[in-house]
Amino acid sequence: MKTAAIFLIDGFEETEALTTTDILRRGGVVVTTVSLTGKSEVISKNKIPVRTDAMFDDVKAHNFDMLILPGGTLNIKDHNGLQELIKKYHSEGKLIAAICAAPAALGRAGILAGKTAVCYPGLESHLAGAKIGTHIVETDGNITTAKGPAVTPFFALKLLEILEGKAMANEVAEGFLIPLVSAHL
Amino acid sequence: MKTAAIFLIDGFEETEALTTTDILRRGGVVVTTVSLTGKSEVISKNKIPVRTDAMFDDVKAHNFDMLILPGGTLNIKDHNGLQELIKKYHSEGKLIAAICAAPAALGRAGILAGKTAVCYPGLESHLAGAKIGTHIVETDGNITTAKGPAVTPFFALKLLEILEGKAMANEVAEGFLIPLVSAHL
Repeated sequence: MKTAAIFLIDGFEETEALTTTDILRRGGVVVTTVSLTGKSEVISKNKIPVRTDAMFDDVKAHNFDMLILPGGTLNIKDHNGLQELIKKYHSEGKLIAAICAAPAALGRAGILAGKTAVCYPGLESHLAGAKIGTHIVETDGNITTAKGPAVTPFFALKLLEILEGKAMANEVAEGFLIPLVSAHL
Repeated sequence: MKTAAIFLIDGFEETEALTTTDILRRGGVVVTTVSLTGKSEVISKNKIPVRTDAMFDDVKAHNFDMLILPGGTLNIKDHNGLQELIKKYHSEGKLIAAICAAPAALGRAGILAGKTAVCYPGLESHLAGAKIGTHIVETDGNITTAKGPAVTPFFALKLLEILEGKAMANEVAEGFLIPLVSAHL
């Protein structure tokens, strides 16, 4: 079974964090929600209190298959422990994903140089050295980035495809009613 | 300010409940998350623990502008207090919304007869007396229903339009990056 850690800080964007968790768990990925605040309960951007599965210090040495950073606030780039973890995973070629404001944390870690990446429109100056992509989700090697809230299901399904394959991603997309929505837009 | 109550039971679909809360709060609606379980912490379908704002018995006499029922489990139709509240609101012509499995609760309450409604594909037998709609979101008079998880942003934006007007719904849609996603599908 594949594993992922998703990192929550006060002000996290609820759709970006929780729809991603929803979709990955539907696809059988073991997702651990990890508090960066020192408290198990973290409060979302729009004031939804969520109890996380684990504290950062308790799982930072775990060997996850993927690190996932939701947006909502640029503060996620200021956590020094997470910065070290991002650098370590990247140096080992391991999977890292971020959406909305959170690609700024990858920029600060210095891992976007020469990579195609995206973020919430207007925050591109935080993507140090990246080539700014043209799609709503961009995967370049081990790094996947996405633009923001409404993109979340497509970001999460891309991560699921990377972890569990296209057949599983398609199966979860169908249950989530993605084809039905796409046909109506 | 407009107010809405969204009702959570163990097994609630996280995207349907929390993205709806996210979008309505972005638009200035005062949303109260209400536990139907007797415990303040409710556990979602994919095991995300969320602390609700209020218990059902403490707010059932409040005068909300809208009642919202997320899906995830048909069990939401079995809460007798919520059934009484749905019937009371409907008898006064007040706003009621449900998505995915939750329109079954409106069917059990007997308020869908002659109304156009939708639900998660395959659960239509629970929509007693309704005309099954052809859109992903259907509004018929005071009742709005929608099909399921990926439909949630469009369901929530429709509710926001009903409560706060089209200009506010468009503004929130833009910040949520809906137009950007629609252009890429």
